[in-house]
Amino acid sequence: MTSPAPPDPGDSRTERTRVRRVPERGIYDQGAVHDILDAGYMCHVGFNADHGPVVLPTLYGRSGDTLYIHGSPAAGMLRAMRGDIPACVTVTHVDGIVLARSLFHHSMNYRSVVVFGVPEEVTDVTEKMSALEVITENIVPGRWNDARKPNTSEFTQTMVLKFPLDEASAKVRTGPPGDDEEDYAMDVWAGVLPVRQVTGELEADPRLRDGIQVPDYLG
Amino acid sequence: MTSPAPPDPGDSRTERTRVRRVPERGIYDQGAVHDILDAGYMCHVGFNADHGPVVLPTLYGRSGDTLYIHGSPAAGMLRAMRGDIPACVTVTHVDGIVLARSLFHHSMNYRSVVVFGVPEEVTDVTEKMSALEVITENIVPGRWNDARKPNTSEFTQTMVLKFPLDEASAKVRTGPPGDDEEDYAMDVWAGVLPVRQVTGELEADPRLRDGIQVPDYLG
Repeated sequence: MTSPAPPDPGDSRTERTRVRRVPERGIYDQGAVHDILDAGYMCHVGFNADHGPVVLPTLYGRSGDTLYIHGSPAAGMLRAMRGDIPACVTVTHVDGIVLARSLFHHSMNYRSVVVFGVPEEVTDVTEKMSALEVITENIVPGRWNDARKPNTSEFTQTMVLKFPLDEASAKVRTGPPGDDEEDYAMDVWAGVLPVRQVTGELEADPRLRDGIQVPDYLG
Repeated sequence: MTSPAPPDPGDSRTERTRVRRVPERGIYDQGAVHDILDAGYMCHVGFNADHGPVVLPTLYGRSGDTLYIHGSPAAGMLRAMRGDIPACVTVTHVDGIVLARSLFHHSMNYRSVVVFGVPEEVTDVTEKMSALEVITENIVPGRWNDARKPNTSEFTQTMVLKFPLDEASAKVRTGPPGDDEEDYAMDVWAGVLPVRQVTGELEADPRLRDGIQVPDYLG
């Protein structure tokens, strides 16, 4: 288990971000929040539609204390969030299945970040282009300067939203199971089954032209 | 890209579940929904707290047309959802990064399910115990009959919620990038970088008693 970091100038604890369940797993240090965000590229965004809460997956990137997401302005999610409504962005990395002797103490090793905020549409052209670069480079570093950049029509068809990270908190569980003391005598195997996300062999587009080599940044 | 399945008796399309963005990726067939749910064990649950939407990761299991989640009744999430409020459960599997010739057509290959519903607390003792078995067996098949089952106190300290799957929809993207026709002549590598989740070597609890072998279901 991870101890909470001491409050520091980067502390982003507010009544809303305070980790309520198993508070010793809560981390409020901005460095930890950034590390967890930078280790991934897919988040789940929650917002209120007319009929209730909606949670959808999307890609993101971080620059400094700002998280960017993008999408089509025709998409319900981005359209809904244009209206200065509160939203929540959550990023979760599963690191392992924790197999305790008792089913009650089974758990998951993970790193997660929860960001609360009212997203703001990025309309400044320079910041918007930079945000698209941040999202792209977060997923595949090196890709931005290789692929064709957005033209005016594509740029207009893309909406970018930003979330400040001042109301973000991280939660982390690591290590072996924590069983009840009397259960350690049991004849049951216990430990952790590690889980991680990996990439496989590149699959070339069937329409890839002859002679185009895999770029170094993908190699 | 995947074509929508034709409407059938298992069709769960409603105004709320209709996939609005890139509708050709929407799938409403219950079999597809079940397959995607059964391929994972971690979901993101969205609900409204007093201050706005909250999205948190948790474990789940499916039995028939019901999705179960569990947790501590002291946790904000489960406490909030006790009150007959609408919620959303989303499961996403990332299958690949789609590298198009234009940045605009970059995408993600994925399978996701979105479930809308008003979760109901499971109070019937038999169904509740069965739901805990479903969640456990979804994560590690074989574990339920090996580890110590919940005692009365643990059973009371565990809350189970169920979501009907009648308002669930799936969205899937597969295959190579879809570039603008004129971009296929570009000198840019294009294709898919596959992504998948894998398990590593089991890590025994440092306090594991000597002589306890790894059970077959984990081997």
